[in-house]
Amino acid sequence: MDQNEKISVGVIGASGYGGIQLVRLLLDHPNVEITYLGGDSSAGKPYSDLYPYLSNQIDLTIEPIDLKEVAARCKVVFLSLPNGLAHQMVPTLLEQGCYVLDLSADYRFSNLDIYTSWYQDQREDHDIAKTAVYGLPELYRDRIKTSKLIGCPGCYPTASLLAIAPLLKEGLVDSNALIIDAKSGTSGGGRHAKVPFLLAEADNSLGAYGVSKHRHTPEIEQICSDLAKSEVKVQFTPHLIPMVRGILSTVYATLNDSGLVTEDLLSIYKDFYLSSSFVKILANGIYPQTKWAWGTNLCYIGLEVNPRTGHIIVLSAIDNLMKGQAAQAIQCLNIIQGWDEMLGLPRLAFYP
Amino acid sequence: MDQNEKISVGVIGASGYGGIQLVRLLLDHPNVEITYLGGDSSAGKPYSDLYPYLSNQIDLTIEPIDLKEVAARCKVVFLSLPNGLAHQMVPTLLEQGCYVLDLSADYRFSNLDIYTSWYQDQREDHDIAKTAVYGLPELYRDRIKTSKLIGCPGCYPTASLLAIAPLLKEGLVDSNALIIDAKSGTSGGGRHAKVPFLLAEADNSLGAYGVSKHRHTPEIEQICSDLAKSEVKVQFTPHLIPMVRGILSTVYATLNDSGLVTEDLLSIYKDFYLSSSFVKILANGIYPQTKWAWGTNLCYIGLEVNPRTGHIIVLSAIDNLMKGQAAQAIQCLNIIQGWDEMLGLPRLAFYP
Amino acid sequence: MDQNEKISVGVIGASGYGGIQLVRLLLDHPNVEITYLGGDSSAGKPYSDLYPYLSNQIDLTIEPIDLKEVAARCKVVFLSLPNGLAHQMVPTLLEQGCYVLDLSADYRFSNLDIYTSWYQDQREDHDIAKTAVYGLPELYRDRIKTSKLIGCPGCYPTASLLAIAPLLKEGLVDSNALIIDAKSGTSGGGRHAKVPFLLAEADNSLGAYGVSKHRHTPEIEQICSDLAKSEVKVQFTPHLIPMVRGILSTVYATLNDSGLVTEDLLSIYKDFYLSSSFVKILANGIYPQTKWAWGTNLCYIGLEVNPRTGHIIVLSAIDNLMKGQAAQAIQCLNIIQGWDEMLGLPRLAFYP
Amino acid sequence: MDQNEKISVGVIGASGYGGIQLVRLLLDHPNVEITYLGGDSSAGKPYSDLYPYLSNQIDLTIEPIDLKEVAARCKVVFLSLPNGLAHQMVPTLLEQGCYVLDLSADYRFSNLDIYTSWYQDQREDHDIAKTAVYGLPELYRDRIKTSKLIGCPGCYPTASLLAIAPLLKEGLVDSNALIIDAKSGTSGGGRHAKVPFLLAEADNSLGAYGVSKHRHTPEIEQICSDLAKSEVKVQFTPHLIPMVRGILSTVYATLNDSGLVTEDLLSIYKDFYLSSSFVKILANGIYPQTKWAWGTNLCYIGLEVNPRTGHIIVLSAIDNLMKGQAAQAIQCLNIIQGWDEMLGLPRLAFYP
Repeated sequence: MDQNEKISVGVIGASGYGGIQLVRLLLDHPNVEITYLGGDSSAGKPYSDLYPYLSNQIDLTIEPIDLKEVAARCKVVFLSLPNGLAHQMVPTLLEQGCYVLDLSADYRFSNLDIYTSWYQDQREDHDIAKTAVYGLPELYRDRIKTSKLIGCPGCYPTASLLAIAPLLKEGLVDSNALIIDAKSGTSGGGRHAKVPFLLAEADNSLGAYGVSKHRHTPEIEQICSDLAKSEVKVQFTPHLIPMVRGILSTVYATLNDSGLVTEDLLSIYKDFYLSSSFVKILANGIYPQTKWAWGTNLCYIGLEVNPRTGHIIVLSAIDNLMKGQAAQAIQCLNIIQGWDEMLGLPRLAFYP
Repeated sequence: MDQNEKISVGVIGASGYGGIQLVRLLLDHPNVEITYLGGDSSAGKPYSDLYPYLSNQIDLTIEPIDLKEVAARCKVVFLSLPNGLAHQMVPTLLEQGCYVLDLSADYRFSNLDIYTSWYQDQREDHDIAKTAVYGLPELYRDRIKTSKLIGCPGCYPTASLLAIAPLLKEGLVDSNALIIDAKSGTSGGGRHAKVPFLLAEADNSLGAYGVSKHRHTPEIEQICSDLAKSEVKVQFTPHLIPMVRGILSTVYATLNDSGLVTEDLLSIYKDFYLSSSFVKILANGIYPQTKWAWGTNLCYIGLEVNPRTGHIIVLSAIDNLMKGQAAQAIQCLNIIQGWDEMLGLPRLAFYP
Repeated sequence: MDQNEKISVGVIGASGYGGIQLVRLLLDHPNVEITYLGGDSSAGKPYSDLYPYLSNQIDLTIEPIDLKEVAARCKVVFLSLPNGLAHQMVPTLLEQGCYVLDLSADYRFSNLDIYTSWYQDQREDHDIAKTAVYGLPELYRDRIKTSKLIGCPGCYPTASLLAIAPLLKEGLVDSNALIIDAKSGTSGGGRHAKVPFLLAEADNSLGAYGVSKHRHTPEIEQICSDLAKSEVKVQFTPHLIPMVRGILSTVYATLNDSGLVTEDLLSIYKDFYLSSSFVKILANGIYPQTKWAWGTNLCYIGLEVNPRTGHIIVLSAIDNLMKGQAAQAIQCLNIIQGWDEMLGLPRLAFYP
Repeated sequence: MDQNEKISVGVIGASGYGGIQLVRLLLDHPNVEITYLGGDSSAGKPYSDLYPYLSNQIDLTIEPIDLKEVAARCKVVFLSLPNGLAHQMVPTLLEQGCYVLDLSADYRFSNLDIYTSWYQDQREDHDIAKTAVYGLPELYRDRIKTSKLIGCPGCYPTASLLAIAPLLKEGLVDSNALIIDAKSGTSGGGRHAKVPFLLAEADNSLGAYGVSKHRHTPEIEQICSDLAKSEVKVQFTPHLIPMVRGILSTVYATLNDSGLVTEDLLSIYKDFYLSSSFVKILANGIYPQTKWAWGTNLCYIGLEVNPRTGHIIVLSAIDNLMKGQAAQAIQCLNIIQGWDEMLGLPRLAFYP
């Protein structure tokens, strides 16, 4: 593929942390070319005004959002916008023939009633939503291949579902007793100036938020139910951790077969993710550190069976802005285009 | 009580983080006077050589450990030593008439077989161990009052048990399905030079350790069993958080009565801790931040009932070195001496 | 002094970090009683709505700002407001007989032209400004004693001037070659939601700001000139450090007498601060850590003479919100009232 | 260049932070192949035992150090060892025809007397040391091209010299009045378990160390003297910052020509570094953040002329483990081999 054959891609909502990850990754991707960056409040500004570390390194300007123009210039469009905006744009973009990868919650739900009930947002686009595929390649690779609209998963659901999937898919655990204790760095709050996310407030502190009410709950439940072939409810508790990037999901489940030991489960997980190069199953006794996934599209998974209580504890670590957001969207694009799934995506952190 | 009436106290094992908290707190305590600081490797050194910020502020020297000498000079002795050393000293100290507050695991177990099985340490002092009281004042205030030997709780058990106690004591939950997802700052690892606790390793990262195998598990189970009046096993998972101080314990339990709502539980908790001034039950919808407890003997508790899953989630935050260690030991001393339980103990953090 | 004799104090601008330090410290101060907390945007709210960790611990409500009412209820008023507001209130408060301690820049300058030129704010109150005393007790203790209006120093000037004062006062260095490289935690930016102060932005990063243009420059120069008895210009460079609290000021000066060694200078500093209990001069070879001053009104100073270059390097560490702001204001109040200068002020950090 | 043509490289001292950077970068470098990893204490271990995040990603084992064997297998050898060891190995490696890139201080000094006086280590290899080239490509690119032995610069000298070089080379400042106030993340201390580098000690704190005595001083002075063509002494003060990676060097100098303004200096710097793609000169009013250089071989430089004092302040930011250590060594290798200087080296950070 030479320069002229590169695929043209655009990013709408380039100013936030999702946007900058997309831009950064797409610049390194051998098969794409960024032909459009769009934003509202920052329209007209050089992109390096928003991220001065890019000065002298890239020459891109934020443009106003004009969907016809975007579609004319881009074969693929990434939407990195607050919830509730994508569904106002997607119908037009699809009509014009674009592939759309949406990073918001708008197209993650096959049943829009669930979306409406958790996001307080009425929707008319039921038909379009039905064509959307949930962009978690390790579970829905085949469907992603043929889709034109991807609802990219939230960061917590990505980490949690990769930890849970083998358990439910193989029917190994009580699907009514799943507990997810999740921990995220503060970049998950976005590049928005809010007091609780100030370093002076969040550093050297730790707390839960949105207990039992976080909007990622129904998203996790939808996919769990699909995997278990029965309705699953989960107890999901997110915590804010004094660090920049990273999610650790600690999942508790009760094994159906009390004879299984840690090594058994590790084998099952390795098999399950055999063709998923971005998922790394750790050796017995090793548990993942979020730092290991920093700046990569990897998900590290470790687990332990507790014979004293009958629980299995699964720990998964990702970079919330990468596998949890932008890099995973590009992984989906790679699949759609028939490229190597790992193309252009970092798979090895810098340490420490 | 005038200066001459102050009680003489000594600290054996003053060099670590437990030691410095004790020294710092005892210096501010109006009814005690530090008459001895003991240590092995640092014997002979001015204490401010270990903690230069104390230069020109205190004039204390680390002395070798000579139990007869210690007993001659101290009415009360705090032991802040690695596990397995206290039980070699306590018999002598008690014989000489000292009150002993031990911060290690040596006297936390009424059944020494459990200690031996988890700590790989044979014990002969069963009779003495039976006289020890578990130093969690909110649960064992009356027994502490009349004890001469206190086995002070571990940091994780303190946070976890304060979160759990009302549930088990009042029989509100399934005692076989307790899950404790606990998170600690790195000072819990002590002032020991170990690679995983280096800032370069631990900062901006997050992981679990000792999953299902941490030694605080049997300690939590012993007290839970005592509260529930039946044998309780818990699933306990500790995590290392990139911060200096603080523990957050997130407890999951299944309510027996699905009709109870968050406000009901908050009322029960407020009643339960009515006479425990260091425990603060938060308002509905407010969850504790570890920073709120920083440098104090407080435990903040928030909770939420999830009607969708039938779980109750209780969140408790403490300063691991204070309520989780040194300050709680002094709280016990206050009770033993019949002083105001809060005497000399910080109860309001500096923020932020 | 019994309860009835406590002095009534008020805080206008209680919602920010300066406000919460004042409230926290005044609650512990044995000779004062908070009788008023004022604010604009938060008027009517319980104070613990702003700082939930105070729930069940204090019962104070933010009230609207009505200067007559404030003066009627308070003998002493602390102003903790953005620059430019205090001078609209102070004339009234003084008229009504209040003592005023202003934490903003409004009354730090004897020459208001300097204020106007650096703060772009016209002033009419030249006569009142002339009665204000610069509230750095270690340098102006005697004048503070008899003042009714204190212009409390900025955080950077406090750290920097305490490091510099002996050098200029004793004529030991070239007063034209002072360089101050200062480093501050992010709480110096206040409790304001701004993107650069987000944990995700500021953590694990480091940079200078306001190079050669920071508003604390003329404040430092004014006092340096007063000490040197000649006009002094300084090169002042502030840096933002990924931590919550603390300022380290690294001062470079050229010694006039190349025969002086580190020990000589340490002696001079010890003599200079002999009656200043909050200033701690460290031993030869020991340099201060900001953490040592955390939560206290202390200033730690270490220094080194470099015989190879003829420089003296002085390092001073304070807590920017305490000695650098609120605690120092209370230290001034103690002096005004003729109380022990250390009354009610923390003088020993918790470590680590 | 196909796989068979890749150059074979070895790393002696692979276990530390320098080692892991080298391994990580070399794995991504298109023209090299790692054929040997050596270490003493970890000989025999799979490399992923030291860095578990590499499990399933690389298959390399630490081997004992046998120089003949190393030379037989490697065309290029990187030495990442404590000071004083390289000069025991280099003679043999050179004899066997290897190219050597040494990351320690052993070959940074053309005059070994300076080395001996600051490092307390006698040396016999004066002839070999004279053939070594100081591996700072922006200053010594031409000499590096033809060298077989590179003494790679220290982290502080790299940041400081890139900030200073244009000033001295062009004779713009008083070469006797250079002050370098440098700040480093704690990874600069290496992967060694030492108490002051524990997160519990170093986090949320800040202090200077080795004031006027740090071993990077003579290294900086040697190059400054070479640039100025006269003997230069510098005042160098390193500080430890609570973050993992990054160095910020704040350089103060006195301009000879008081008529120069910031824009003039920026032009001079841009010209000076015109052919140095890794050095980024920032726009007027923009100062570098260390985070911008995270994980890259970049050096960001900002500057300001202070017309009030006649100073120029230059700020340079690098990643201490990359441009300050391992990546720069690979940059040197690229030059030696005649490859594109940027080959295989990251030039764009992930943000935030």
